[in-house]
Amino acid sequence: MSENILKIECNDSEGLIYRVTKVLAESGCNITRNGEFVDTANKKFFMRTEFSGSSDLENILTELKDNLPSDSEISIPVKRKKKIVLMVTKEHHCFGDLLVRAQYGELNAEIVAVVSNYDILKPLSDSFDIPFYHISHNDIKRDEHEKKIIKKLDSLEFDYIILAKYMRILTKEFVASYSKRIVNIHHSFLPAFIGASPYKQAYDRGVKIIGATAHFVTDDLDEGPIISQSVIHVDHSDNAEDMARAGRDVEKIVLANALNLVVEDKVFVNGNKTVIFD
Amino acid sequence: MSENILKIECNDSEGLIYRVTKVLAESGCNITRNGEFVDTANKKFFMRTEFSGSSDLENILTELKDNLPSDSEISIPVKRKKKIVLMVTKEHHCFGDLLVRAQYGELNAEIVAVVSNYDILKPLSDSFDIPFYHISHNDIKRDEHEKKIIKKLDSLEFDYIILAKYMRILTKEFVASYSKRIVNIHHSFLPAFIGASPYKQAYDRGVKIIGATAHFVTDDLDEGPIISQSVIHVDHSDNAEDMARAGRDVEKIVLANALNLVVEDKVFVNGNKTVIFD
Amino acid sequence: MSENILKIECNDSEGLIYRVTKVLAESGCNITRNGEFVDTANKKFFMRTEFSGSSDLENILTELKDNLPSDSEISIPVKRKKKIVLMVTKEHHCFGDLLVRAQYGELNAEIVAVVSNYDILKPLSDSFDIPFYHISHNDIKRDEHEKKIIKKLDSLEFDYIILAKYMRILTKEFVASYSKRIVNIHHSFLPAFIGASPYKQAYDRGVKIIGATAHFVTDDLDEGPIISQSVIHVDHSDNAEDMARAGRDVEKIVLANALNLVVEDKVFVNGNKTVIFD
Amino acid sequence: MSENILKIECNDSEGLIYRVTKVLAESGCNITRNGEFVDTANKKFFMRTEFSGSSDLENILTELKDNLPSDSEISIPVKRKKKIVLMVTKEHHCFGDLLVRAQYGELNAEIVAVVSNYDILKPLSDSFDIPFYHISHNDIKRDEHEKKIIKKLDSLEFDYIILAKYMRILTKEFVASYSKRIVNIHHSFLPAFIGASPYKQAYDRGVKIIGATAHFVTDDLDEGPIISQSVIHVDHSDNAEDMARAGRDVEKIVLANALNLVVEDKVFVNGNKTVIFD
Repeated sequence: MSENILKIECNDSEGLIYRVTKVLAESGCNITRNGEFVDTANKKFFMRTEFSGSSDLENILTELKDNLPSDSEISIPVKRKKKIVLMVTKEHHCFGDLLVRAQYGELNAEIVAVVSNYDILKPLSDSFDIPFYHISHNDIKRDEHEKKIIKKLDSLEFDYIILAKYMRILTKEFVASYSKRIVNIHHSFLPAFIGASPYKQAYDRGVKIIGATAHFVTDDLDEGPIISQSVIHVDHSDNAEDMARAGRDVEKIVLANALNLVVEDKVFVNGNKTVIFD
Repeated sequence: MSENILKIECNDSEGLIYRVTKVLAESGCNITRNGEFVDTANKKFFMRTEFSGSSDLENILTELKDNLPSDSEISIPVKRKKKIVLMVTKEHHCFGDLLVRAQYGELNAEIVAVVSNYDILKPLSDSFDIPFYHISHNDIKRDEHEKKIIKKLDSLEFDYIILAKYMRILTKEFVASYSKRIVNIHHSFLPAFIGASPYKQAYDRGVKIIGATAHFVTDDLDEGPIISQSVIHVDHSDNAEDMARAGRDVEKIVLANALNLVVEDKVFVNGNKTVIFD
Repeated sequence: MSENILKIECNDSEGLIYRVTKVLAESGCNITRNGEFVDTANKKFFMRTEFSGSSDLENILTELKDNLPSDSEISIPVKRKKKIVLMVTKEHHCFGDLLVRAQYGELNAEIVAVVSNYDILKPLSDSFDIPFYHISHNDIKRDEHEKKIIKKLDSLEFDYIILAKYMRILTKEFVASYSKRIVNIHHSFLPAFIGASPYKQAYDRGVKIIGATAHFVTDDLDEGPIISQSVIHVDHSDNAEDMARAGRDVEKIVLANALNLVVEDKVFVNGNKTVIFD
Repeated sequence: MSENILKIECNDSEGLIYRVTKVLAESGCNITRNGEFVDTANKKFFMRTEFSGSSDLENILTELKDNLPSDSEISIPVKRKKKIVLMVTKEHHCFGDLLVRAQYGELNAEIVAVVSNYDILKPLSDSFDIPFYHISHNDIKRDEHEKKIIKKLDSLEFDYIILAKYMRILTKEFVASYSKRIVNIHHSFLPAFIGASPYKQAYDRGVKIIGATAHFVTDDLDEGPIISQSVIHVDHSDNAEDMARAGRDVEKIVLANALNLVVEDKVFVNGNKTVIFD
């Protein structure tokens, strides 16, 4: 494991890697892993570097700011397990999977709380001693419900919200409050089957492959930057329920994979896409 | 290899397999491979049987008709290589792949002719001694162009038309003339990216997987019954051209696979879906 | 869901499907799903039929025995959730996955007990209220250890033993006692990397794909009939630990998939292979 | 497309990326794509850089040599299509696929000649106007046969030899003459099913997935550094011939993929493994 991670994004210009590695070399750091990408269409530069060997990260950041374009976003994420809040509704599969992974150190994140509009999954949450907050949406308006959720979230300290089969649409305002910090699992191979009941849609269309998509949530439903996707073959003998059953396995693997990429600071958001150094 | 194939589709009712196998057994036939499927939602029955051992297929057909529901479609496809016409435009990859396969017996079909709106691929066709008919669409209306094509097709004997990257939309009338006999390869994982430039669409959307779809052509563009699909992973470093390059391999494998399923009489069309016994 | 399942295996002869479906039809049963396979090399016939509509299963079995070859193995498995015993060592991923699935009805089996040579996973077992029996192998011989396990197993009622990352080799005698009833997950794409430390072996060999294999256990280590396999891509930047991490996801999906096939009576053992009607 | 590619491998030490990018920056070059990898177990550093903007490549090479460890292998491969010789026996699928790709610019290589121990594939070669040299192995010893081949190869100018289903084992001497320059396609998912008849072996073992492996040839049969692998699912109904048929598609895609990686200078050999920057 490297000691530190450096993330940089800026408009592309000449000699950027040289300028970055110069600062690191002169600070006595050694690069152990490095990824760069230039989005030539949009002239954007992305770089993620794992390095060891410096005690003065503040100084490195200052030096980098002095040597890189003024528009650069430069960060050395603090070295600690990221904290996540899970939002769930009734389905257990992604939720149970993340609970087991987190408990056994397979997830580089700590689940600090679960928020749900139903109390169905409370027993599972309790089994793993994770605080479970049931905030029902019954008899109240959408924005009132969200206010209650936000109030709860405000009382918590966390880095990311993971929608682990949270089946309600979030308002533009909610999403804007947690920009680039909400990850959702959608039960289709987006952009196929946007919206409700994708397995039913897939069955009706007679597809031979189904999939799942983990993405950052933006205010366009199912249109946020895609982090990870995977698929599985189906055939004519699979009805919508069979597809849902097969799809659950894809969903939980894709979500866990995407989550690990995010909490390990491997993902950049580039407009409506992602740049991932894995 | 079995001597004969029997295909049956009808409304579902009790004892159908028994009634079919009784006729075959009493005719001295032995079943070597058998596939059935009941579409319970639509109460439709599909059965494909490979059998050996009878000299009187006419009699078997008569017996089956007498013993099965009157709506049944029963066939024992003649045992010969199916004849296909390829329609192409400018891209070589599916076309070249099918030519090589056909020449070396890897395709259970004979390519009787190639029809193209360009003459770009004529040299490749000539290499394999396949008649190539260049019917330009320049300076004529769509229906006039199709009339010319139909005139050519009328002069040929064939079972299926394979659109091996034929990049023009066919009219409703054309499609209706060859119902369930036209197979197309679409360069996306349908129903994602319907229409033009799917790789460009995929790149713009930032997907992590791209695919290809072989389907029967109906008069709804890209909406016909899907026969085969496959996918390949891509990432942020792949531009639309890279995706197209990766996708070509998927396209040619998917089309060849679908074509073999069709010409080996393994595919039933069930409304807007397929039932495939592989 | 069909009411009953019929499984038949016998030496191949003529008219078998007819003979079976005749008995079912004359007993007033309707076949809703059917799979047959003839292993022509070994002249073996396999058939699995889902049917509804009879109250007298005993009579059907008698009729089938009267009409099928005397070597036939015919069964109509009792309609209940299969009972399974899990054997584990230290790794949590397959175990945790099966616990969550079983609790939420995603596994068509009931976990009646867990047997482990360590007590590390006891807390996880306790969370799901599954009896956990810690039978240490320390300071005792292999056969003595197994005797203790067998004694415990003898006190339980179960259909299958699932080795969910049980990392000790079982003796020939143990395996013989539960013939065709032990399912193991091996952390490689068998027959590649038989034996210990397959991820280390895979890393040393520089493979670009790793996999997992679920199989019935026989007395030849890692040589039993394969039920399910799956793979995942890796590259030069993945060390043995990274491969193990990626592999865990494959292992748990493959084992759960294989287990469901087994407990849903979809698997036949055919010599050292399986015949699966899915 | 970038103007030039720089490949470096050396023992790992501090500041290597900085030292390389410094030379490039000071030579007025701009890096458009960059890949590095440190094999920490063996302390080896690999770097592949695409850059534009310099007219004096000789000077860059000199500067790099002055600034990097003395053990470094540094190269800026000449910018031209690589030349390849194909060696084939009787099977057409990889051969035909490469011919079509090369003809239509889908392969970044030029096929300068075909060498075969049979004349079966000569007509296909002729169709594409590629010189075909039939060097029969009949009635002569292995080393005599190879001497004839080497004599022919000596008369040709080429970068790589591609064994596109060449079914004879090459001697240690032959392999040594073209170190890291021979690519083979093996029809199994190595290291499973080393040696002859892998599809027969796969069928006998009852695997559920088969694959293909492209690798550099070393004097250990089927043990050379793996470049690319892919797989396809099979089931109990597939006999060895069906598996071979399915496998052919995997083989040709894997070989073409590996070949493009090699001729685009994206592959390093690292002991018995490869490091690939794609």
